[in-house]
Amino acid sequence: MKDLFLDPTLFENKKVIITGGAGFLGSTLAHRLLQLKAKVIVVDNFYPHYGANEFNLQSIRSHIELVRESVTNEEKIGKIVDQTDYIFHIAGQCSHIDSMSNPWLDLEFNCKGTLTLLELLKKKKLKTAFIYAGTRAILGSPDTLPVSEHAPIRPVDIYGVHKMAAEWYGAVYAKAYQIPFISLRLTNCFGPRHQMKNGKYGILNWFISLGLQKKPIRIFGNGEQLRDYVYVDDAIDSFLRAGAFVKQFDQVEGNYSQVQLAGKDIPFAVFNISSGQGLRFVDCARKIADALEVPIEFVPWTAERAAIETGDFVASPQAAKELLGWEPQTSFDEGLKKTIEYYQSHMSHYL
Amino acid sequence: MKDLFLDPTLFENKKVIITGGAGFLGSTLAHRLLQLKAKVIVVDNFYPHYGANEFNLQSIRSHIELVRESVTNEEKIGKIVDQTDYIFHIAGQCSHIDSMSNPWLDLEFNCKGTLTLLELLKKKKLKTAFIYAGTRAILGSPDTLPVSEHAPIRPVDIYGVHKMAAEWYGAVYAKAYQIPFISLRLTNCFGPRHQMKNGKYGILNWFISLGLQKKPIRIFGNGEQLRDYVYVDDAIDSFLRAGAFVKQFDQVEGNYSQVQLAGKDIPFAVFNISSGQGLRFVDCARKIADALEVPIEFVPWTAERAAIETGDFVASPQAAKELLGWEPQTSFDEGLKKTIEYYQSHMSHYL
Repeated sequence: MKDLFLDPTLFENKKVIITGGAGFLGSTLAHRLLQLKAKVIVVDNFYPHYGANEFNLQSIRSHIELVRESVTNEEKIGKIVDQTDYIFHIAGQCSHIDSMSNPWLDLEFNCKGTLTLLELLKKKKLKTAFIYAGTRAILGSPDTLPVSEHAPIRPVDIYGVHKMAAEWYGAVYAKAYQIPFISLRLTNCFGPRHQMKNGKYGILNWFISLGLQKKPIRIFGNGEQLRDYVYVDDAIDSFLRAGAFVKQFDQVEGNYSQVQLAGKDIPFAVFNISSGQGLRFVDCARKIADALEVPIEFVPWTAERAAIETGDFVASPQAAKELLGWEPQTSFDEGLKKTIEYYQSHMSHYL
Repeated sequence: MKDLFLDPTLFENKKVIITGGAGFLGSTLAHRLLQLKAKVIVVDNFYPHYGANEFNLQSIRSHIELVRESVTNEEKIGKIVDQTDYIFHIAGQCSHIDSMSNPWLDLEFNCKGTLTLLELLKKKKLKTAFIYAGTRAILGSPDTLPVSEHAPIRPVDIYGVHKMAAEWYGAVYAKAYQIPFISLRLTNCFGPRHQMKNGKYGILNWFISLGLQKKPIRIFGNGEQLRDYVYVDDAIDSFLRAGAFVKQFDQVEGNYSQVQLAGKDIPFAVFNISSGQGLRFVDCARKIADALEVPIEFVPWTAERAAIETGDFVASPQAAKELLGWEPQTSFDEGLKKTIEYYQSHMSHYL
């Protein structure tokens, strides 16, 4: 594995904006970047139910700048964006179900949010490294597994449509305005700091929440579908490596056909961030149920969920391995153990 | 060619909404649907510079209902949408260049506009046949020509990104809410009733406008790129056939692999509406220049245009031929002659 972090100063004293930085991925990234001595600005509008949590930042609160704004507020964001080395754009509407019941909110967060940031960079002629939290959702139900970055894009819900559009904003702005843009197509992430109040935003954490409350875990259908899980620390590692990829783009070696589009100096690239291992959903649920000693119940799919269910999904992380030097380091069982331990200590902050 | 119009009553007394119905394609469709005895409602916000023109509807004004509203006005559109048999959704922002300088307007018209209509159908549980004016722009620069409907989607400008998103709204709503949706991916259309004030919205008509004003025609680069032109009457025929395709879906025979997605009862389908013939852009310009006796000037590409230029583009109309029974009937030369004659008579209404 190529080590993109030979230079320990890659993030040291660098100005970094993390959107959605009070949420699950964003706050974990903030913790990690502080360890790397970056100057961290967290932008978060603390939109209700979407995972932003003061507790996620409590231990680092005095070491970061916190901007309580939506990323769609061009004026406010415009005031902080100059001289930024990295934007990690993680803020978004992240529920498949909500995107169908309220596509307007999804349009606002996922399209308008991303477009606001890119428009600011364009207008200010900034070449900030833009790392985007993409998603497997834009691929829908792939024909073959594990799916590569070359597979056709075909989302099955409005969340997927808008996340796809945002990824393409990146392609267009990279080419037209020389803004480097990396989309990390995350599969299903789980781990500490995730919100625990609702199953719409990350099902494994929701199951852990139920288990800790000694409530039964409910599975739609038979749970036989394969899922590809990534533990949060590994996901965060991919964000750092994507940033390093942009900054050291001239030194990167590897097979560029793995990348959908890339210029020599300004990369636009898409990477699956995935385990490459298909786990049966019911088996994952069973592990949680067993660990927390609660029963599993099987219930029929609701119509609204059945309409947007993708079936089996496994993605190949080969491109990320070759070009980012990224590989997941945490097994599912190990990640699950850490997650349960975290919430056993801190559950009150998430309920 | 299969005749989808065996039934002369297919549009007779049918309630039809045409969005963007005062513009180039929309008004031409309105004329045609009146001949077929449909009850036509035109929705148009007469947004400046985007092609809406009172003159386009003058001769049929007393036979149609004209709603001067944006399609994004959910309340107003909600009052007219019940019992509609067909929605021909043509309203949109249609300039590549404008989509880059003002992506917000493009987002509003092309994403929000389409989503407003589909949300109305969803909420009212209507199964109205939804025919969408798609575009070749979502395909960017294809690897092989002529390009089929199976080619990867990869837009190069914001217009293309949002038109792609809107097409996928159709796929999602067709599957989740059983709303039949056909996207007609139009290549470059030309003909009467097109606006003539600006080259950003259809270059051939702009050249004709220049020629009629005895001004030189200006070409960026060498003009060697191939383009695929469709005359307006042929484009309009494809809209009618797409409507017929939805209403007679159970009788359609053909190779369904040509269609990206289709259920048995509720079609979602995508068709290239194209000539399949690549004409060199400079040759087309030359014909206009010769007919109107003006010179051609060659100038370097501007940076903003070069950034979003796709190079050669030719699309195969094979799927439309097989499943819609559609084929272009008008040669480029014949279409050009008709277009010039129209503006020679009516130019004052378009300047």
